[in-house]
Amino acid sequence: MKRASTATPTSNRKLKADNVRVVLVSTRNPLNIGAAARAMSNFGFSNLRLVEPYEPSWREARSAVGAGPVLKAARVYSSLQDAVADCALAVGTTAATGRDLQHPIRRLEAGARLLRAQSLRKPVAIVFGSEKYGLSNEDMSWCHWLMRIPARVEHGSMNLGQAVAVCLFEMIRTGTAVQPKAPVAASGDELDRVTAMLMDVLTTSGYVHADSSELKIRRLVRRMNLSSADAEVWFGILRQVKWKLGPHQLSPR
Amino acid sequence: MKRASTATPTSNRKLKADNVRVVLVSTRNPLNIGAAARAMSNFGFSNLRLVEPYEPSWREARSAVGAGPVLKAARVYSSLQDAVADCALAVGTTAATGRDLQHPIRRLEAGARLLRAQSLRKPVAIVFGSEKYGLSNEDMSWCHWLMRIPARVEHGSMNLGQAVAVCLFEMIRTGTAVQPKAPVAASGDELDRVTAMLMDVLTTSGYVHADSSELKIRRLVRRMNLSSADAEVWFGILRQVKWKLGPHQLSPR
Repeated sequence: MKRASTATPTSNRKLKADNVRVVLVSTRNPLNIGAAARAMSNFGFSNLRLVEPYEPSWREARSAVGAGPVLKAARVYSSLQDAVADCALAVGTTAATGRDLQHPIRRLEAGARLLRAQSLRKPVAIVFGSEKYGLSNEDMSWCHWLMRIPARVEHGSMNLGQAVAVCLFEMIRTGTAVQPKAPVAASGDELDRVTAMLMDVLTTSGYVHADSSELKIRRLVRRMNLSSADAEVWFGILRQVKWKLGPHQLSPR
Repeated sequence: MKRASTATPTSNRKLKADNVRVVLVSTRNPLNIGAAARAMSNFGFSNLRLVEPYEPSWREARSAVGAGPVLKAARVYSSLQDAVADCALAVGTTAATGRDLQHPIRRLEAGARLLRAQSLRKPVAIVFGSEKYGLSNEDMSWCHWLMRIPARVEHGSMNLGQAVAVCLFEMIRTGTAVQPKAPVAASGDELDRVTAMLMDVLTTSGYVHADSSELKIRRLVRRMNLSSADAEVWFGILRQVKWKLGPHQLSPR
């Protein structure tokens, strides 16, 4: 594609591109990391995060000729939890329609609209799994919901760099409806605090044993769609209950 | 991207995918030919045409492991004129906004809509130039108009495979956002049960006194957007906590 434009497609009042994080989990192919960074540059996004990238690939991608500012500024995380800790909305991508029904799945068109709206207020993350396996159930449990690129699958899965490009273009495309004003959503950190305190209460009260149900509880909290203010309220409630329950004792049964 | 879907995204009454030709002019990189074919497969398009591809690249792409039916069925032409001869509408792609004003330029979003509409009646072509030079003025002269992918250019031009993916997704995207299959929402009754049990827990634990805060708690529960299933889960959680807390005693303070 020959270039000649100087237009910035992200000077869009319905999107705050600086608040969008592109998160690649366990990416193996350096070309894909480069392609993701390139699509980000093309469409005006700059915040790339890598969770446990295959180390030689990451080294190679970063040192590639033409590796731009996006790659240079990219940050590496050891867990997806950390990578989305500052995000009020973390959305996993998938080609699946029914594999993991613990999470709501939205088509890309609808999902991107919600991401854009939230980006106006707080950081948001679009999370891409590895080329081979996609996102694990553990990965997905850090996501509020999933976004599906409606691709056919008869001839193989979608290329990671292309998936990133398609998602980001959908983020900047015009002609979308204005969102109603929503309250400021809770960040990943805030949700994690609530989740941890709830787990504590559930263990102490004998509702769950040890951490066997942690993924379930994490998803339960994510489905609450908490605002930042309500996350604070729930934390206070649970702390009080915990205090009243007293120290954890092993259930007699 | 993990795959699991069997949905065909092109079963769209506003598009006839069989009538869409993807035309690559003077492509040099075999990876790009492969990537274009892959995006076509993903999004349900099958008619690939190459105009004077760099011969070794074309040989390599066609013989690559995993080269699918799209590559196998691709046809090679010696001129763009021949490649679009059966098309009622041929649209060139560009990142330029003003370079070649002999042609009307439409943004991708608007252009794809016109292509879709025309595809219902007659064959249409989306034409991509070479990686390095894009489409020449001669090439463009075989096009009815140009379509611009609104990418920034500060950090380089757009990757060909990604440009094809973005254009084709725009062709199959649904105009009206599809709602995700929402879980059955909790009824007022179910919410009231949760609210009452929560009030009980909050009173017993000393978080609230008597029913001074009942409205607040009712709104808090409503804001959880509970599904029927989750309302049941929360009721169970709160009942267990309540049981563990023991009978309500007046707070000493």
